[in-house]
Amino acid sequence: MPSPTVVHDLDQAYLTIMQSRAQGTKWGLVPTMGALHDGHLSLVQAARETCDAVAVTIFVNPTQFGPGEDLDRYPRTWEADLAALEQHQVDLVFAPTIESMYPPGCTTRVRPSDVAADLEGRFRPDHFEGVATIVLKLFQVLPAEHAFFGQKDYQQCLVVRDMVRDLNLPIHLSFRPTVREADGLALSSRNRYLSDVDRQRALGLSRALAAAAARAHQGERDPQRLEALATQVLEDAGVDRIDYVALRDADTLVPLKELADRAVMLIAAHVGATRLIDNRVISVVASEAASQG
Amino acid sequence: MPSPTVVHDLDQAYLTIMQSRAQGTKWGLVPTMGALHDGHLSLVQAARETCDAVAVTIFVNPTQFGPGEDLDRYPRTWEADLAALEQHQVDLVFAPTIESMYPPGCTTRVRPSDVAADLEGRFRPDHFEGVATIVLKLFQVLPAEHAFFGQKDYQQCLVVRDMVRDLNLPIHLSFRPTVREADGLALSSRNRYLSDVDRQRALGLSRALAAAAARAHQGERDPQRLEALATQVLEDAGVDRIDYVALRDADTLVPLKELADRAVMLIAAHVGATRLIDNRVISVVASEAASQG
Repeated sequence: MPSPTVVHDLDQAYLTIMQSRAQGTKWGLVPTMGALHDGHLSLVQAARETCDAVAVTIFVNPTQFGPGEDLDRYPRTWEADLAALEQHQVDLVFAPTIESMYPPGCTTRVRPSDVAADLEGRFRPDHFEGVATIVLKLFQVLPAEHAFFGQKDYQQCLVVRDMVRDLNLPIHLSFRPTVREADGLALSSRNRYLSDVDRQRALGLSRALAAAAARAHQGERDPQRLEALATQVLEDAGVDRIDYVALRDADTLVPLKELADRAVMLIAAHVGATRLIDNRVISVVASEAASQG
Repeated sequence: MPSPTVVHDLDQAYLTIMQSRAQGTKWGLVPTMGALHDGHLSLVQAARETCDAVAVTIFVNPTQFGPGEDLDRYPRTWEADLAALEQHQVDLVFAPTIESMYPPGCTTRVRPSDVAADLEGRFRPDHFEGVATIVLKLFQVLPAEHAFFGQKDYQQCLVVRDMVRDLNLPIHLSFRPTVREADGLALSSRNRYLSDVDRQRALGLSRALAAAAARAHQGERDPQRLEALATQVLEDAGVDRIDYVALRDADTLVPLKELADRAVMLIAAHVGATRLIDNRVISVVASEAASQG
């Protein structure tokens, strides 16, 4: 199996993609911070199925971490990442240095759309500015025709969706379902932080989402009652601190007065020293909703 | 002489450039707000000389005007613009609607680099965010290899330079000298606002810059004295209000303690209801500067 071409240099990455595109090759891009798990690899798989060639970026982006967050201890697993990408027949791995992506004086940023303001934006004030900026930069350095993101980072998907639309970026986006462990835990590079006991308590997030979804399908339409139910499940699981449990419009993330056709429940909670997020789209078909009206 | 292709639709503009690029055509881009004058046309000329094909955008960008500014009365001279562009053998004119560039909910923006904070940024707080955003959008819709801007908008050139560097935009930039009337007045679409009397008073800007440059070449190295001289010339010319007279580092726009190798003097002043800007790079050769030390 051929190893992926590993590129650290920005110009080389750009020229590689452009020269290949000129020959008709359709590229798919999977931006990551490394510490790859099956969620990332499902994105690679989707890119492989849609595109002729796949580029994966591995870059722990400092501008999306706040002061006191886990930038320093964020897992770096380069050898294992590269082996996994080789196994998944990735063509190009782009792994730039921090200095090459953010040289001194680099202060231009992307200010994300209104969808970034609440939820993660409230608890991590500069997070989405960092995300939007690095994603736009990667889209320029690696001008693929298609990019793939995981819905585990639901709000991030909407930030990127809005950025691509608002700034007319010429790239197609695919958002892929969250990959979970058999017991429901959403895959995350940060799961490596969890002790066995924390790992059990972390199940509270997916269980809370499942409980709210089940109750919604039984007919509950009141967002506050659904949020209260999910909060109770989280507390019963013994999480240490809840940042938010929010049922929102799935497209705009605005609060809902009543559960509508497409809603999403989003959770952020702390288990030990680890902050976890998870979400679940709660789809109540229109006729079902109407019959409750 | 063939008329330029006029394109209003974003997708059509993108596909036109991309298909042409695929055949090896090198495109030059000249973003404008219309009301074209010989300054714009010198950019078109430069693009013609450097590139195989030239695209000019005509779009009065609302997001770079502040409340109470001249968005509504900004001159629109579509027929004359198109005739001039035809005469200059422009290949493509892109003239989108406001609604297509800023559809409802379009809130993602480019936050410009630190170079935007002072001077124009102080008097027109959201101006450069609007400029950076529209320029990035136009670069995406019309993916040319080369773009041309006029140094009359000196700070804008630096904002665009920083944006292209910081966000890794794959485009070459050329900044071209300000074109002036015989008596020194910098060409500007806003000169159309000036009455005959205002037109005479407006000469204060270029005269102030010339006076400061002459004094610098005579050996004056003190920025404050050079600024005071320029201010005096402006006042003598009878301008109504001075926003700033500033001698700055030509690359970073930071204030200088002493006139150095590359400095720029920038002026913004009001003549009647018209706000005008002008600037002049004041280049004192290193040996000349050293001999004064």
